[in-house]
Amino acid sequence: MGAARIRATYRVTALAADIETRARALAVEQSVEMPLEAIRDARVLAEVVATVESIRTLTPGPSPGGRGEKWAPFPGGRGEKWATSHLGEGRGEGAFEVTLGLAAETTGHEASQLANMLFGNCSLQPEVELLDVAFPPGYADAFPGPEFGIAGLRTMLAAPDRPLTCTALKPQGSTLDHLVHLARTFALAGVDVVKDDHGLANQASCPFAARVPAVQQAIAEANRETGGTTLYAPTLSGDPRALAGQLQVARDCGLRIALVAPMLVGLPVFVELRRESGLALLAHPAFAGASRIAPALLLGKLFRLFGADATIFPNHGGRFSYGRDTCLAIAAASRDAWEGLAPILPVPAGGMGVERVPEMITDYGRDTMLLIGGGLLVAGDRLAERSREFVEKVRRS
Amino acid sequence: MGAARIRATYRVTALAADIETRARALAVEQSVEMPLEAIRDARVLAEVVATVESIRTLTPGPSPGGRGEKWAPFPGGRGEKWATSHLGEGRGEGAFEVTLGLAAETTGHEASQLANMLFGNCSLQPEVELLDVAFPPGYADAFPGPEFGIAGLRTMLAAPDRPLTCTALKPQGSTLDHLVHLARTFALAGVDVVKDDHGLANQASCPFAARVPAVQQAIAEANRETGGTTLYAPTLSGDPRALAGQLQVARDCGLRIALVAPMLVGLPVFVELRRESGLALLAHPAFAGASRIAPALLLGKLFRLFGADATIFPNHGGRFSYGRDTCLAIAAASRDAWEGLAPILPVPAGGMGVERVPEMITDYGRDTMLLIGGGLLVAGDRLAERSREFVEKVRRS
Repeated sequence: MGAARIRATYRVTALAADIETRARALAVEQSVEMPLEAIRDARVLAEVVATVESIRTLTPGPSPGGRGEKWAPFPGGRGEKWATSHLGEGRGEGAFEVTLGLAAETTGHEASQLANMLFGNCSLQPEVELLDVAFPPGYADAFPGPEFGIAGLRTMLAAPDRPLTCTALKPQGSTLDHLVHLARTFALAGVDVVKDDHGLANQASCPFAARVPAVQQAIAEANRETGGTTLYAPTLSGDPRALAGQLQVARDCGLRIALVAPMLVGLPVFVELRRESGLALLAHPAFAGASRIAPALLLGKLFRLFGADATIFPNHGGRFSYGRDTCLAIAAASRDAWEGLAPILPVPAGGMGVERVPEMITDYGRDTMLLIGGGLLVAGDRLAERSREFVEKVRRS
Repeated sequence: MGAARIRATYRVTALAADIETRARALAVEQSVEMPLEAIRDARVLAEVVATVESIRTLTPGPSPGGRGEKWAPFPGGRGEKWATSHLGEGRGEGAFEVTLGLAAETTGHEASQLANMLFGNCSLQPEVELLDVAFPPGYADAFPGPEFGIAGLRTMLAAPDRPLTCTALKPQGSTLDHLVHLARTFALAGVDVVKDDHGLANQASCPFAARVPAVQQAIAEANRETGGTTLYAPTLSGDPRALAGQLQVARDCGLRIALVAPMLVGLPVFVELRRESGLALLAHPAFAGASRIAPALLLGKLFRLFGADATIFPNHGGRFSYGRDTCLAIAAASRDAWEGLAPILPVPAGGMGVERVPEMITDYGRDTMLLIGGGLLVAGDRLAERSREFVEKVRRS
């Protein structure tokens, strides 16, 4: 007896006197979403209603100073910026870590319904943040996970051990000739993966069907000249019909990898791309700023579960706000043993420059792909040299 | 000359001395995402890079009290809970309303890329919130908008003028017999729309292909007995392949309306459902708690632009946190004249009871669908009476 339970852990802000009631209400919200006294089906009460597995005090309230700390530490001891919605603290409320047992059957073993049960309605309750999830045995088997992962990408790139490099074709709005020129320059320099800028989609200025075969050909030619293995990762975007057309183009020109933002195309669409495209998938975090899902969970674990082979995230010290510990947690979530899924590449990015290569490799190790975009392009006429410098710095690591 | 520009308005927290620099950086982030000095294409600089159209001070910092207000008012004067990420205030920073001019061409005139340009990368910057958007003439024509809207739904329901009623089949995990019984009871009582609970998807306990024809038939029988026009709105969810199967079931049993959570299936998938399903679409806000997009923009304008006919939102005073002004703003965004799109029904919900019917009708007027779920089900054996009471209260309005 007893249903298989997914353990979902939330950060909940509440008065200490209310937290047990609040946790039970969260369990109802994320399962049957109706008053329990109106449920007469014994099976539903025993096996479908979510359970409160544990409640742990993170920061008791009210704090000695009277008004409380504005930004309470992230569980695990880090007070980083992503945790921005600690509503109510400073009004005598405290922070609690609440673990629910969600009945696995309620998720339908499918991405959109899993997201719904984990954080569907309570995403609208600002005092609740989703921190982590743990599955019962066998549950993750319903999801594809990465097809290639770190090992498969290393094979494609003939790079068994060293850290990997990545850059981006920018800016959107450029002519096809310019993008082709950039791609050739990067491939000649030996950059491992040349991706589209995440803003390059299917705009009139350089449509997918014209851009992708031309860039792919330029990179193939450069690879022939150098004996290199540079891969091109264009952006897949749009509705399922558009994606089907883009996949046809990709097949026709022998593409091996693509860039996809799971939160823009939709989580279940991302899973379907994993199952049907045959491409390695480089996940982009655009539109993922639902700041109340822990980045390591969303960009690390969940994107991996749904099939990413590499996951891009904004590295600390760049244009974004994640702190170093959050970034290391994303990297750990992408590579640590979890649910028998292949490890995937963490891809720190977002305002990085060549001068930060050594530090990033120290931080993230060799099973990492470093992504520098604008930091190469600012070199202007010296783009080829800067690109080679990037590649060499990483290869010497 | 001059590209057609989308005006996107953000709330940005920054030091007053930095706001112009911060606004320009945001314009770069949401367009070319690279240093401008590395761009040599004059067309890109003139027509593709986003412009800073205006900067308006909302709350100057530092505030007289020294530490500032924790939760600054929402622009427009409301200090409501959804605006939870006003990071940095209290550290001498102020809040500013920044309007960017995004080149329309960068969006590819498609939902995922529009979302990307509006809030893709900056969703990861907690000091930025997306407040509103205004399109250049003709831009919205690329999107379908609602097919039926308020007028079409009123025709389907033979209810030309009064407020409308809605309830939900709950809880998930129930047997098919129980859900059929509930559906029949609600239809006999004359509830206009009986929707699936948003958690009812395609689980083993009551799969879509078994549930939907059976419930649809029960409601059709009740309609024949009463001469009524109750509609059944089941949940469409899953990946595009699953959705195609669900649409086939829907067609086979003559379904007219469905419940869809755009943020769970993906925004471009929602648009495709609008274009290809032939169904009226009732949008559900699950997983939409990206608390840094204004609810009136996301649940009101954007869901309407993408094709919703009615939009469910958590009403104030229920289980969620939106304040009354936010709720009224959602209702206004769903019905006010905008881009020539048909007005759509606001559907206040989330812990409402029959006793709140008069107040909700006073708040929202007659072009509204009231959704009460658990508040009917708690009546237990008196479910039929409670449902009739709900219907009668609304009809007498």
